[in-house]
Amino acid sequence: MDIRACLFDVFGTVVDWRTSVSREFAAFAQAKGIGGIDPVEFAVEWRKLYHPSMEEVRSGRRPFVILDVLHRESLAKLIGRYGIKGLSEADIDHLNRAWHRLDPWPDAIAGLTRLKQKFIIAPCSNGNIALMVNMAKRAGLPWDCILGAETARAYKPAAETYLAACRMLGLAPANVLMVAAHNPDLKAAKSQGLATAFVARPNEHGPGQTTDLKADETCVDIAAKDFVELAAKLGA
Amino acid sequence: MDIRACLFDVFGTVVDWRTSVSREFAAFAQAKGIGGIDPVEFAVEWRKLYHPSMEEVRSGRRPFVILDVLHRESLAKLIGRYGIKGLSEADIDHLNRAWHRLDPWPDAIAGLTRLKQKFIIAPCSNGNIALMVNMAKRAGLPWDCILGAETARAYKPAAETYLAACRMLGLAPANVLMVAAHNPDLKAAKSQGLATAFVARPNEHGPGQTTDLKADETCVDIAAKDFVELAAKLGA
Repeated sequence: MDIRACLFDVFGTVVDWRTSVSREFAAFAQAKGIGGIDPVEFAVEWRKLYHPSMEEVRSGRRPFVILDVLHRESLAKLIGRYGIKGLSEADIDHLNRAWHRLDPWPDAIAGLTRLKQKFIIAPCSNGNIALMVNMAKRAGLPWDCILGAETARAYKPAAETYLAACRMLGLAPANVLMVAAHNPDLKAAKSQGLATAFVARPNEHGPGQTTDLKADETCVDIAAKDFVELAAKLGA
Repeated sequence: MDIRACLFDVFGTVVDWRTSVSREFAAFAQAKGIGGIDPVEFAVEWRKLYHPSMEEVRSGRRPFVILDVLHRESLAKLIGRYGIKGLSEADIDHLNRAWHRLDPWPDAIAGLTRLKQKFIIAPCSNGNIALMVNMAKRAGLPWDCILGAETARAYKPAAETYLAACRMLGLAPANVLMVAAHNPDLKAAKSQGLATAFVARPNEHGPGQTTDLKADETCVDIAAKDFVELAAKLGA
């Protein structure tokens, strides 16, 4: 392998969306006097609307819109479903940007900092640029640039998301490593010729997680327990 | 002013293209046994083809292509004009990437590092993403993300280049500061509602420079002698 750049899935792979969105909702609910909603359940229900919302774009039924827009539409549905009343548009915008305020897994910054010494590092996330930049500024993620759905105008696992990232870096897919905690993401990247690395995040979905506990050997080149081990395996 | 992000012109404002491209051509010419061409003249002649090449895209006569492509076409013209023979495609690609290997002005990294503590910092250059990323990795430019012509699919001074950068950051133009050593760039940004800062680069065009020696007060909000003074003026 002759790797020049590492691309990263972000939600679940770099950051812990479940704990962070729960925390954000709990703080928001307290500030607004919203009672009786389990914050973890709210985060999980919000996330459940993620793939269906992107599927509207992936299927061609809807022109590309950024994830902030999809997240906000999903949030509006949840606010209706839970019967939450009296929120201003600014309140909803603030809660929607909970996804800009996600905390990294404990090893993420140390691993990325090592990897950055040797490789170009960039997200290849379905999150939009503002979301990724605001998250990185808050959390200290040392990206070299922001790639992904907004620059490709296509949502993973569409081939174009991976291919546009490689093209924009001026690199052949074989010189780019896709890193994710999700085997389907890696399967899609591998099918476009990228190298792949699996990093297990066995608590992404909380206790009792049954999916993505280990690498799918049919599509994964490297498996590591965290980003620091990944850096070591790549000689960074 | 409520500035959240600073966008930077790059060629001439952050980096010294004239000295760097001259150095790159001199090294290339020596390695390839090319004699009798003044490296500074070669750099200046290459740069002279920059605006006409982008004008093909700006005018709509040609679909958007990245600057690496335009630079290479201009380089091919110069190779023909100077009668340089015997270069491989790989040789020409290497020389074309001279624009990826430009050195920053002496104050640039110190100033950007300070500005990054308080603001999002990103290039808003006509250079493409790979060019900007490779330049940043080599020179140590601490960008938060890469914006500009490739993400906007429009070359400055087209309004869309500035507006797409603001939109992708999720910010109103009034919350974004465009920084450049070129008054026409700032005039175009100001006309789209961005705040503007002029940093003089009186040696960009070598001795005897007559243009852009000082800020055009009709379109410039802040003038600074270098990036460190700009950081100080912005409280960063």
